[in-house]
Amino acid sequence: MGTRREHDFIGELEIPDDVYYGVQTFRALENFKMSGRTLKEYPFFVKAFAQVKKAAALTNKDLGMVPADRADYIVKACDRIINGEFLDQFVVDMVQGGAGTSTNMNANEVITNVALEMMGHKKGEYQYLHPNDNTNFGQSTNDAYPSSIKVAVHAKMGDLLKAMEILKNELEIKAREWKDILKIGRTELEDAVPTTLGNTFNAFASYLKSDIEKITKARESMTYLNLGATAIGTGICCHPDYKDLVEKYLSDITGSTFRPAEDFIAATQDTADFVHVSGALKTAAVRLSKIANDIRLMNSGPRCGLGEVNLPQMQPGSSIMPGKVNPVIPEVVGEACYEVIGNDVTIALCSERGEFELNAFEPGIAYALFNSLVLLENAMLTLANKAIKHLTANPENCKKTMLNSVCLVTALNPYIGYENSASVAKEALQTGKSVADIVLERGLLTKEKLDEYLTPENMLNPRIEK
Amino acid sequence: MGTRREHDFIGELEIPDDVYYGVQTFRALENFKMSGRTLKEYPFFVKAFAQVKKAAALTNKDLGMVPADRADYIVKACDRIINGEFLDQFVVDMVQGGAGTSTNMNANEVITNVALEMMGHKKGEYQYLHPNDNTNFGQSTNDAYPSSIKVAVHAKMGDLLKAMEILKNELEIKAREWKDILKIGRTELEDAVPTTLGNTFNAFASYLKSDIEKITKARESMTYLNLGATAIGTGICCHPDYKDLVEKYLSDITGSTFRPAEDFIAATQDTADFVHVSGALKTAAVRLSKIANDIRLMNSGPRCGLGEVNLPQMQPGSSIMPGKVNPVIPEVVGEACYEVIGNDVTIALCSERGEFELNAFEPGIAYALFNSLVLLENAMLTLANKAIKHLTANPENCKKTMLNSVCLVTALNPYIGYENSASVAKEALQTGKSVADIVLERGLLTKEKLDEYLTPENMLNPRIEK
Amino acid sequence: MGTRREHDFIGELEIPDDVYYGVQTFRALENFKMSGRTLKEYPFFVKAFAQVKKAAALTNKDLGMVPADRADYIVKACDRIINGEFLDQFVVDMVQGGAGTSTNMNANEVITNVALEMMGHKKGEYQYLHPNDNTNFGQSTNDAYPSSIKVAVHAKMGDLLKAMEILKNELEIKAREWKDILKIGRTELEDAVPTTLGNTFNAFASYLKSDIEKITKARESMTYLNLGATAIGTGICCHPDYKDLVEKYLSDITGSTFRPAEDFIAATQDTADFVHVSGALKTAAVRLSKIANDIRLMNSGPRCGLGEVNLPQMQPGSSIMPGKVNPVIPEVVGEACYEVIGNDVTIALCSERGEFELNAFEPGIAYALFNSLVLLENAMLTLANKAIKHLTANPENCKKTMLNSVCLVTALNPYIGYENSASVAKEALQTGKSVADIVLERGLLTKEKLDEYLTPENMLNPRIEK
Amino acid sequence: MGTRREHDFIGELEIPDDVYYGVQTFRALENFKMSGRTLKEYPFFVKAFAQVKKAAALTNKDLGMVPADRADYIVKACDRIINGEFLDQFVVDMVQGGAGTSTNMNANEVITNVALEMMGHKKGEYQYLHPNDNTNFGQSTNDAYPSSIKVAVHAKMGDLLKAMEILKNELEIKAREWKDILKIGRTELEDAVPTTLGNTFNAFASYLKSDIEKITKARESMTYLNLGATAIGTGICCHPDYKDLVEKYLSDITGSTFRPAEDFIAATQDTADFVHVSGALKTAAVRLSKIANDIRLMNSGPRCGLGEVNLPQMQPGSSIMPGKVNPVIPEVVGEACYEVIGNDVTIALCSERGEFELNAFEPGIAYALFNSLVLLENAMLTLANKAIKHLTANPENCKKTMLNSVCLVTALNPYIGYENSASVAKEALQTGKSVADIVLERGLLTKEKLDEYLTPENMLNPRIEK
Repeated sequence: MGTRREHDFIGELEIPDDVYYGVQTFRALENFKMSGRTLKEYPFFVKAFAQVKKAAALTNKDLGMVPADRADYIVKACDRIINGEFLDQFVVDMVQGGAGTSTNMNANEVITNVALEMMGHKKGEYQYLHPNDNTNFGQSTNDAYPSSIKVAVHAKMGDLLKAMEILKNELEIKAREWKDILKIGRTELEDAVPTTLGNTFNAFASYLKSDIEKITKARESMTYLNLGATAIGTGICCHPDYKDLVEKYLSDITGSTFRPAEDFIAATQDTADFVHVSGALKTAAVRLSKIANDIRLMNSGPRCGLGEVNLPQMQPGSSIMPGKVNPVIPEVVGEACYEVIGNDVTIALCSERGEFELNAFEPGIAYALFNSLVLLENAMLTLANKAIKHLTANPENCKKTMLNSVCLVTALNPYIGYENSASVAKEALQTGKSVADIVLERGLLTKEKLDEYLTPENMLNPRIEK
Repeated sequence: MGTRREHDFIGELEIPDDVYYGVQTFRALENFKMSGRTLKEYPFFVKAFAQVKKAAALTNKDLGMVPADRADYIVKACDRIINGEFLDQFVVDMVQGGAGTSTNMNANEVITNVALEMMGHKKGEYQYLHPNDNTNFGQSTNDAYPSSIKVAVHAKMGDLLKAMEILKNELEIKAREWKDILKIGRTELEDAVPTTLGNTFNAFASYLKSDIEKITKARESMTYLNLGATAIGTGICCHPDYKDLVEKYLSDITGSTFRPAEDFIAATQDTADFVHVSGALKTAAVRLSKIANDIRLMNSGPRCGLGEVNLPQMQPGSSIMPGKVNPVIPEVVGEACYEVIGNDVTIALCSERGEFELNAFEPGIAYALFNSLVLLENAMLTLANKAIKHLTANPENCKKTMLNSVCLVTALNPYIGYENSASVAKEALQTGKSVADIVLERGLLTKEKLDEYLTPENMLNPRIEK
Repeated sequence: MGTRREHDFIGELEIPDDVYYGVQTFRALENFKMSGRTLKEYPFFVKAFAQVKKAAALTNKDLGMVPADRADYIVKACDRIINGEFLDQFVVDMVQGGAGTSTNMNANEVITNVALEMMGHKKGEYQYLHPNDNTNFGQSTNDAYPSSIKVAVHAKMGDLLKAMEILKNELEIKAREWKDILKIGRTELEDAVPTTLGNTFNAFASYLKSDIEKITKARESMTYLNLGATAIGTGICCHPDYKDLVEKYLSDITGSTFRPAEDFIAATQDTADFVHVSGALKTAAVRLSKIANDIRLMNSGPRCGLGEVNLPQMQPGSSIMPGKVNPVIPEVVGEACYEVIGNDVTIALCSERGEFELNAFEPGIAYALFNSLVLLENAMLTLANKAIKHLTANPENCKKTMLNSVCLVTALNPYIGYENSASVAKEALQTGKSVADIVLERGLLTKEKLDEYLTPENMLNPRIEK
Repeated sequence: MGTRREHDFIGELEIPDDVYYGVQTFRALENFKMSGRTLKEYPFFVKAFAQVKKAAALTNKDLGMVPADRADYIVKACDRIINGEFLDQFVVDMVQGGAGTSTNMNANEVITNVALEMMGHKKGEYQYLHPNDNTNFGQSTNDAYPSSIKVAVHAKMGDLLKAMEILKNELEIKAREWKDILKIGRTELEDAVPTTLGNTFNAFASYLKSDIEKITKARESMTYLNLGATAIGTGICCHPDYKDLVEKYLSDITGSTFRPAEDFIAATQDTADFVHVSGALKTAAVRLSKIANDIRLMNSGPRCGLGEVNLPQMQPGSSIMPGKVNPVIPEVVGEACYEVIGNDVTIALCSERGEFELNAFEPGIAYALFNSLVLLENAMLTLANKAIKHLTANPENCKKTMLNSVCLVTALNPYIGYENSASVAKEALQTGKSVADIVLERGLLTKEKLDEYLTPENMLNPRIEK
């Protein structure tokens, strides 16, 4: 295997012939041995970067800033990367200093060398196409990097929203299917008044609905980019028409509408919209975890727990306890959610630490936010497809438990009065008798009236007879 | 001082005659010795609770659920509390078990005893007006408490938004005033290309603008209430017309539009909208802290720092170092922001921990969220009125520093080429000479062209001559 | 009410005659309207500050730095404050800028004016005793403030440790009392093999034991102070003998051993020992919350939950559900723990934000850390005295549930083989029969052997017959 | 490529012949598509697991629980894995449900199949060696998994401590080298009294010293294992001699001393020692980030910042600003620290969520904690080797800036009085004159005395002339 020599203003380096990245990527490999997770593990980010670079090339061609033939080859190289080729050439650690310069240069170098080969040149013959002067023309890391993150987050939030719709649909199916299964409601883990298993799953679906709205809204903040801001937002060294044209091209390429941020100075230094997005993810994680935990509780047993629903058997639960099966799916979902909540703190810290015209810790934000997006999407899909879809109910057990509850007496409040109700409750708890038996024994209501008041319609809806 | 005896189903207690709260509040005082911070330290919450109780009384009167004369006195008592009377009677620790039952009963008892006295009765003569049967009629802690929190948060977010507008305005005044003060831009704390002090403060104003939008949007989620949901959202023991009517009255009383949540089951158990609101506050805290920190850096000195702006002298800075003055206002603002970020974690934990039909940890959410709201509002006002309003600039120093910067050469890139620029930069850094001097020495540009390219217009805006 | 005039280098202010604090405290009141929580709400901190000031006065007297008679009156004033007098004069907001200067000056001014009155002078006659030149002599906020925080945290950690011992003892009492109550063990909320209620509470006691050790260890880091470091740790303007002598006096006054930190430069700027202490508190909060949650689960019911233990009835649980009682004590304990976990984030942020020779955000650390200490101590005591002490068990229910469990079959593994065990488990789950019945039906074991293997001794301890 | 069939109690699966893992690992691959990070990316964990399995095999051989020849092959297979072979066979996602069962079974299956091939059998011929009945004998996931995590964390903490020693040494070298370089001290970013660059770096070394102690101490908690606890800590199905013997073997194998935890019930369910370890890591991260940030500030410039030290040039800093170099190493170190702080929250949540006899979220803890350990070790090494080792100072600039400071006047306090000092400071700030000039002009001190008082010895150490 041969090598080629490349240089930057720090000096010269020997680069193996077979790699498409160049000297600056090499330095970054040496400098950042940190998380061990590299760009290529986040293909949606590599794709977004190539989309931004393609839009820039098309714009530079139109504005006459890059010769048409060179621009055309940049575009072709970007297209191949967008289609998933050369993913293994994106090798820099996600956790990096330099506010993303190394990521930007990794992209510039790979795109350029891919294009050079398509042009019939060798890698490294930058006299025919230059990573900085052509591929990066009109750009700074400080606009290309945050914009690519936003394009990537926007895309991944789209995937997340689809996963959330899938989960919502599965929950709604169960809600409809189980709308007549009576079960005890519990407040503060204590027996309360009756509800239905349908109500429970409908509420879970409502959670998703609320989060879908909030994440959709937060996603909009990802569509305001600072392409053309260059170094600090003043647009120094950039053509005045660049910023509008590049967004038009980017919108075409991605199929989503992107537009210039209103204040480029602010947009270049401010990363708090990522905090905002992460906050929306965290809110969804909180709700998702609550669903997972309620399911774990309802599934608890098989003999010594609540036993209201049954998770599908996914894998043996114990090498020592025969027949044991554990709620592995809601568990792994919970872990993903706790990761998202922790990442949210990391993102806030990185964002708060920005100084002056740029946030040096933006790669830390990208790393944590991408991880949250991946985990949350996977968690939504996993819960939907491996738990909710195959969940079954124990209607007999649900009903029996509910009928045994002393709290049924609440439904009689308006008819026998709170004092009588409390007295019945007390006797029931002391003796173990049922509420119905005591009410009849005491002659507080006729059997007919009692039955009427304890029908689901009476207990599950607002109703007062005067 | 005499006493009266009150009882609940746990037993009887002796209550001092002079207090308006009753037996259940007494138990709560005994049970919850936790944070030491009581309801009365959050007057906006006490007010919101009284508004909700007033709306309930008016509704119950209309529906015939509470006798008109009793309802009228409940309303009168609520009005006095809304106007700030009896604040010292709200004594329960904010951090409490029971999902807010003790807060609800503190309110019910105080309202009832105030009303009883207005009716000509003595405190505790509940045969004439009953805390549960009348004042709390049609309500459960599980709807009254979360709804009151939302009304309180909604009101306090309104105050916060006003404070944010004040800060934004002060920042915009500075942005306009300083729009021509040239200064160095800094990326990653290193000298970058020129900007203006006006740009800097305009970007800060943009931060506020972004957060005002986000907080305004998040505030809407506080207008969907579950009044009429009673115990678990099924509305058991509640009149079917209650839920719409009570919202109408509450909207009249508060002057804001409240409405029933779509899914009462979800609305009763789910607290993640508070996580969402807290996320918006945290995002604002991150941005606010960034502003405070940039100001601390720009103000650093007086001799050995950046010295670009001057904070007003608020107080002596040292008992040992004569003449020392510290940036106490941005510092205290930073601390408030870090509190908000920590509270955000607490709120997520409390919310995630909810089980089944109710979240037992809602008082923990209220406590942390109210604290965040108070701190953030105070931080915004403090920064606006005690720092930004009186901030002065050092235009000479700003300009001199900027002109000294090697990075000015960036503006010459398009005219002398990147290679020449880099070479000029290198010589400047090694010799200490200015960029302009070297460019002229080398004959790279005429004095005229050089002056033109280094005018603010050229350096502060996108511009490329082909 | 008359006034007196006081001045500092910012200017002059009119001070009401009746207050003991002076001009610098007044400025702080104006500057820091932030959390609303003032020094006086943390009496252990005010006491610690007075102890440090007393030690300094005694040292300065010995070293001849403050005239003996003046020093004596400073000491007398400090003693009165240590004994709880003048608490209401400590009025500055806990959340303050200036790295604690305002707290230090609040203390200096109150001590001085108290002393002046004892000397027969009027408040404000600083020619006879000066807040800076005498009371603060040889000190800087930068050593007095962090040292006082450490003394306060050290004292409060002592209180916390006592509370933890109380809780541990209550848990151990239950562990002994319930050592023979068989119950089902649960892993991942699913039925596992048998344990005893005694094991459960003994494990809780073990948690406490572990945390007592860790907190005791972390507490040691609070005994290394930087008194004598003055402004930045170099000890400028301080007598070389001051630092050792003042620690000796402080140890005498407090009854605990304090000593000079090894590196005064580091000790003056570094606040990460507070992060360390907060980490220990958080670890204890995590364990405490786990205990509280397990108790809530074991107490769940009364009819539709696990029903293994019974919390004492502390207060009515619902205004709408007759007879309902909620686990309010473990709930409030949980909330306190979530506060502690959130505060831990705040403390890390404040600490990480320190720059150069001092951490400006130390008041934010003190505020959050004191709150954590108060909450955690209260939570420990509350759980001990209002829950564990009065907790009762349902041994019949525990045993019945356990015997019903299919997982009993695990104990038979070594005798009938895993394959047979699994088959028995499967039949039991499908038919609802007990494990014992199926084993006997199948003739896998004799009744005698079966009874032997299913004795507690066999199931609760390691044992294998070959 | 052929396949083999394997089954568990869920059913049968087709397994490709070339993989060493089996049916349960296959199910886990299907069930847990979550983080995308698999066991093999954490070789220190795979190694620890093999060490634990080896110790178990040796113990089982001694106790006669596994036939000697079978045990011997398990040991041989473990040795190969310990030596790094078969790493790619550890394929399960780190984020998994089932409390680690899938990790345990991945290990059991790979060890067994490796051993089978060494025995001359084919993979999957479990009649000759069984993953559960032999390799896992006497173990449960519930003891093997947490114990392996502890062994892994213990080892990795050892690596971390070595990295910290390296960083401490580099800092101490600079401290000695620069002990005479005078520089301004800064409190709250404002000019304070003089210090030396040596003091600054010595303080950083002191940070490391403190954290090395704390992490060493926290590491001890990782040496108490629950091997032999089996399912819930009662040791059911385990030989009574197992627990002591297995620790002896494990200590031999690892070269570190491990021992049985005192309370196996607690040790099996409690994960808070990981919270404790993470707290120690977070404390170190807070201090490390403070060092990195101070270096970024001291390095700021080259013309418009503080310019006190110079970071080595690691890579070009900008594609648009010629000659720009950024502090990429301290930046990436900061990001790693913010990750650690976020992971600490995740770990607390996972730990707090444990219920009853086991913590289902332990894999989430392992994932976050391993990531923190890797990041923190890398951050320490990176800062040491790529920043501190090559850091240079600007002694002239440090001294010039310091001499320019008004705060020098503090050193004169004891000789000319605070009043005079304050007046000198005021004039200096207003006129721009130096302190020394004004003091001489006013005749407050002779030139000789002035020079004496302003010598480093006087300003850098405690000293008072009476």
